[in-house]
Amino acid sequence: MNRNRRHKQATSSEERVLRLIRHTLKPEFRKLVDSGIRVAIGDDAAVFRARPGYETVLTCDWFLQGTHFLLDRHPPDAVGWKCLARAASDLAAMGAEPRCFLLSLALPTSRTGAWLREFLNGLRAASQKLNCPVAGGDTTRHEDVLINITVVGECRRGQAVLRSGAQPGDAIFASGQLGEAEYGLQILRSTRGYLNSGDPLLRKHLYPEPRLALGAWLGKQRLATAMMDLSDGLSTDLPRLCWASGVGARIEECQLPVIDAPATREKHVNAVSLALHGGDDYELLFTVAPKNVAKIPQRFAGTAITRIGEITSARKTVLINKKGPAKALPQRGWDPFRENQK
Amino acid sequence: MNRNRRHKQATSSEERVLRLIRHTLKPEFRKLVDSGIRVAIGDDAAVFRARPGYETVLTCDWFLQGTHFLLDRHPPDAVGWKCLARAASDLAAMGAEPRCFLLSLALPTSRTGAWLREFLNGLRAASQKLNCPVAGGDTTRHEDVLINITVVGECRRGQAVLRSGAQPGDAIFASGQLGEAEYGLQILRSTRGYLNSGDPLLRKHLYPEPRLALGAWLGKQRLATAMMDLSDGLSTDLPRLCWASGVGARIEECQLPVIDAPATREKHVNAVSLALHGGDDYELLFTVAPKNVAKIPQRFAGTAITRIGEITSARKTVLINKKGPAKALPQRGWDPFRENQK
Repeated sequence: MNRNRRHKQATSSEERVLRLIRHTLKPEFRKLVDSGIRVAIGDDAAVFRARPGYETVLTCDWFLQGTHFLLDRHPPDAVGWKCLARAASDLAAMGAEPRCFLLSLALPTSRTGAWLREFLNGLRAASQKLNCPVAGGDTTRHEDVLINITVVGECRRGQAVLRSGAQPGDAIFASGQLGEAEYGLQILRSTRGYLNSGDPLLRKHLYPEPRLALGAWLGKQRLATAMMDLSDGLSTDLPRLCWASGVGARIEECQLPVIDAPATREKHVNAVSLALHGGDDYELLFTVAPKNVAKIPQRFAGTAITRIGEITSARKTVLINKKGPAKALPQRGWDPFRENQK
Repeated sequence: MNRNRRHKQATSSEERVLRLIRHTLKPEFRKLVDSGIRVAIGDDAAVFRARPGYETVLTCDWFLQGTHFLLDRHPPDAVGWKCLARAASDLAAMGAEPRCFLLSLALPTSRTGAWLREFLNGLRAASQKLNCPVAGGDTTRHEDVLINITVVGECRRGQAVLRSGAQPGDAIFASGQLGEAEYGLQILRSTRGYLNSGDPLLRKHLYPEPRLALGAWLGKQRLATAMMDLSDGLSTDLPRLCWASGVGARIEECQLPVIDAPATREKHVNAVSLALHGGDDYELLFTVAPKNVAKIPQRFAGTAITRIGEITSARKTVLINKKGPAKALPQRGWDPFRENQK
């Protein structure tokens, strides 16, 4: 009897977690239909109907306690927002639009109350903002909070922008300001006690906004010859694009859209280093053929777009500044298998 | 200089992991095209083209060290096989066929050598057997081995079999023998020293085979009114199907397809309890309207199919045996949030 009662209570605990997830994230019926979702959370799998003339774009993304966020420093709603936003950024990088997502969540029993509620509130906010409702998922218990997000998106047939299309002579562009998120992380790490998550300097790190409209526009207009998102830092990501395209790149230091907050000057922050090696910006890095360069606006939907260099045939990435000859750009961005990662 | 060299070596470590994954799992070009994959591993996201007249079926599944497998007891190739096989079982439960999968893998540096190679060999074997090539993924470092698999499948429009269609009077069927995987786990836990992973009694636990052909046939013939896979044990999964359908169920103990290995009799194993509460079988549980019961064969592609009970309108799950009145069936299968889980 005792045993059965214990089982019943415990089962309720799992059911409670699932109910909270469903209750918080469940979109309106209309939204489900609009997103192509035919069967949502609650069955063995989700059913999604692709639109005729479109291809399905799929990405999955880890977001792990200790590796990608700090449980005692990052607000739970920021964890919820960011796990979906950064996954959706991979779709922006393909020129695709998000349609729905699957949430895989593992967490300790101690986080199934207030923490989970706030996490889900942040996730719901991102889901609404990105027009990307939940379609399914998997939940289990683990001593750490582990998140994996699969985002399902669409782009018109043959319009996905790959990493592999850059040609020597193409101009290299980046959206936004680079290094902003890394600077926010530094502030977060150095702040003792109360953290003001509304601080504009923290915003880019806590609540990144994937450049979906820009990516979709570049894809639709066929202006980008290659594209990817900047998640691990320019010095690590640009060589990946170059490798995929079989080319090299030359970056002009003076052109980099570095951060310029008064605070950074006060604290003698190296803004160039942040722009080159800082991760988590989720800006777009893309290349444009010379004949199309004039079609790229200086701003798109409020976001700056900056020409930062040129694709070369030299199969290496170099940095040019006014002080001397071109130098090889060391890959000092985020690398999970690097020992002593900051 | 020293610093750069360290960075270079470390970057190579991540590149080596990615290269090994690509090299081991990369399907032939023909296979990619046949599976609808237009852009595979190596870009920001995968691109998949759904077949006209089909819907896309999507599922994701955790497979975590400590929670779902024991790093020191489970052979790495079994971990690789099982993580994909159990995720694909969710598609079998919808009557869908797998098309491709995404691999999210987090592991410590110490497991990036022999362990990773064997894991990938097992995963490749499952991928080939299930005709389900890799399309993308995400890799990072973590102190535990963490796996999340997203499987993308297809079924013809409107033919997905849901959990919610069972009606009072429908017969309840299960494929295979129930409790076999749990029994294998017990052997694995009690074995000291060398483990013979070829032992037939361990096979169901280590290398489960999702009932894809059976699920697809039931879906295509429209014979199953409701279906799900048995992953957490009959006593936990059946109430989920009943809840989704707004019905109850009566199970006949003497009909249960329990295991009958000589070893289980020797060791006084309770085969009925294993069949009711043992998890990880990945057999199919489905319901059939009375008029169609005669169309269900006793075996399908070598797998036994057994009628184990009937759907009722009573909104509870009861067990009938010869000894006395019907008893409520306690949910004693796998529940991640239950304390003191075996």
